[in-house]
Amino acid sequence: MSRVVVAGTFDTKAEPLGLLVEKLRSLDAPPVTIDTGVFGGDHGCDHPAEAVAETAGYSLEELPPLGRAGAVSAMATGAARILRQLVDGGAVGALVCMGGSNAAAAFSVLAPIVPIGVPKILMATSVAGETRALVHGGDVTMLYPILDIEGDNRILRSMISRLAHVSVALLRAGGEHPVSAPEDSVALTMYGVTNPCVAHCRELLVDRGLEPLVFHANGTGGRSFESFVRQGLVASAIDVTISELADELFGGLWPAGSGRLTGASLSAVPQAIAPGAIDMICLGPLASLPERFRSRRHVAHNDLVTLVRTTPEENHRLGRTVAERLGTPGAATSVLVPMKGVSQLDIEGGAFHDPGSVEAFAEGVASGLPPHSPVSLVRMDHHINDREFAEALVAAVDPVRAR
Amino acid sequence: MSRVVVAGTFDTKAEPLGLLVEKLRSLDAPPVTIDTGVFGGDHGCDHPAEAVAETAGYSLEELPPLGRAGAVSAMATGAARILRQLVDGGAVGALVCMGGSNAAAAFSVLAPIVPIGVPKILMATSVAGETRALVHGGDVTMLYPILDIEGDNRILRSMISRLAHVSVALLRAGGEHPVSAPEDSVALTMYGVTNPCVAHCRELLVDRGLEPLVFHANGTGGRSFESFVRQGLVASAIDVTISELADELFGGLWPAGSGRLTGASLSAVPQAIAPGAIDMICLGPLASLPERFRSRRHVAHNDLVTLVRTTPEENHRLGRTVAERLGTPGAATSVLVPMKGVSQLDIEGGAFHDPGSVEAFAEGVASGLPPHSPVSLVRMDHHINDREFAEALVAAVDPVRAR
Repeated sequence: MSRVVVAGTFDTKAEPLGLLVEKLRSLDAPPVTIDTGVFGGDHGCDHPAEAVAETAGYSLEELPPLGRAGAVSAMATGAARILRQLVDGGAVGALVCMGGSNAAAAFSVLAPIVPIGVPKILMATSVAGETRALVHGGDVTMLYPILDIEGDNRILRSMISRLAHVSVALLRAGGEHPVSAPEDSVALTMYGVTNPCVAHCRELLVDRGLEPLVFHANGTGGRSFESFVRQGLVASAIDVTISELADELFGGLWPAGSGRLTGASLSAVPQAIAPGAIDMICLGPLASLPERFRSRRHVAHNDLVTLVRTTPEENHRLGRTVAERLGTPGAATSVLVPMKGVSQLDIEGGAFHDPGSVEAFAEGVASGLPPHSPVSLVRMDHHINDREFAEALVAAVDPVRAR
Repeated sequence: MSRVVVAGTFDTKAEPLGLLVEKLRSLDAPPVTIDTGVFGGDHGCDHPAEAVAETAGYSLEELPPLGRAGAVSAMATGAARILRQLVDGGAVGALVCMGGSNAAAAFSVLAPIVPIGVPKILMATSVAGETRALVHGGDVTMLYPILDIEGDNRILRSMISRLAHVSVALLRAGGEHPVSAPEDSVALTMYGVTNPCVAHCRELLVDRGLEPLVFHANGTGGRSFESFVRQGLVASAIDVTISELADELFGGLWPAGSGRLTGASLSAVPQAIAPGAIDMICLGPLASLPERFRSRRHVAHNDLVTLVRTTPEENHRLGRTVAERLGTPGAATSVLVPMKGVSQLDIEGGAFHDPGSVEAFAEGVASGLPPHSPVSLVRMDHHINDREFAEALVAAVDPVRAR
């Protein structure tokens, strides 16, 4: 039976966490509890702090010399290992974290361990602010508690009651619609400038009776895409838009982390990759553009976003990085390069048109592939948004599907 | 009977919003629907787009000339008026918005209309990112849908099912714990540097059988504080920490908007105000400090936050602004000024100690008060964190309470 797992610092938040546990019990959903508090103490947890520390390779006494950050990180490591075992055993129906900034930090480590389809729930004041590291592309629910989660008062009781009800509702809703039917879903990545390509692909996929799942590749979307693919929730992946990699390597706004472009290879999911939107690094308002980008070609996308042209050298490095991250994939993998341009801006007469950059990308891929790599690299005499290019992408993942 | 209110652009999101409505009905929670779509059309809404536009003073035909932003804003205005009527009639048990960036924008206008205690729920990809404008200090729940909310697919169905379950759970949990018992709750505002003052106040309040509710004044907390006070959810307010005003006026990280310091006066809640932490403007990492602040005294609070000393001139302006915002309050109002310092850093020997600034603040208050103002301004020969100062704050709001 999968249950709610509550992870928190029972040492300093004993009262509110105790209220949460009690409330979940009263709703017939007794939780599994993990104490991530560095000070220990007996709080009746299923996984007390001593055990969490030991799982990370420490005794509680060895934590203080690590300093505050080190101790918190050690406990998160221990909790992550315990959670992974619970997940592997099918015991986790929802993850719930509640507390202050430590709870948010623990959540950002623990939530990615929980598969998509299993709710991840956080109540902390820090959900008001920059939440990308908390969401991390996952199916996350966040509650703002209004007050700090400290002690016991009626407002907090009301918020904790809500958190318990939400957790139980999500736990029970889980089975109603399976999150995916892997055998006929295909994951794609999109930007506005690659929209026509993805629209063509969608149409072709739907014609084949497949379900396209489109991820908006703005940092969070790329993480979601990788999670989906890594967890085998799709039959194949058409990774049309990899601009997050440019943001990661060259200091843009929307990197998706070092896991980007690794999921399909690791999980043996057939994939076709196109260098969509690698002509651009996404940066903030024009006025805030760092000195090093000012002399480059750039386009003000709106008041908040400025797109800066990548150089041929950067494109070579992008290609090489793609090849390195693909590694030795366990299923058919193609990199299709549209030689007439990689985005709506990189098109004949467009602001970012530069065929030399596309060629540099292709050469970068070639240089990064090991000898006898199973990855096929194909230069195509099309623009990325040509229908023929979309047909090639779909064909590249089609024949290998078991249907 | 209070019900779930669903507001959304039924023109462009007819499929997913239709699924949500259907799901809520199947859970015995048929929603009230408000169509904020600018293109109109018959979607069976209780408040169709035509009616929403008319409530804002337009016909649908008059919207296109306003431009996209103008049209969206007009619809939000209309929806806000309708929602306010529903709230006043006691018809709103929860607000639910779902969609893209328009849904998020509408939510940020609509959620503040819904009283604290009534859940406000948003599902949109934009909950991954900067959420302060979405949360706005309210008791908000946010779901990240993984995919864009477009069309109909199984992942999205699963996420919409979750949203419906969460909405119903929150609707039904609402009555379980009332959000407040106004007659014996007192709202306070805190920073780390005013923590001792608030701790003293809490102890004194608890001794009197009162329940202290402490808000962390980091922009969002100040908004929550103002909402609580404005909605009459507390017996009195002790506003110890008003540094958000410095951030608002002088370009700091955590402003709480122009509503700060207005709630108690508007709602005739007795209040005591202290200039806690007005010695500091909160800014980002040291390396990012704007030129104009570099020559000032500053303290690196941590890697992410640098505190910059406010000047006597700025303190005068802060005092004047406080007086202006208090206006002519409808209940006893005191401004108590701790002449020996306003924070842990502004203390004899401390990095920000500067009695001239405190005096400038007091003079600013005096200069901003109208003749015969009922606001009492009291200079006290104490530091803000002295126990005697906390006693004076509690005494200032105590005698007027009806008990």
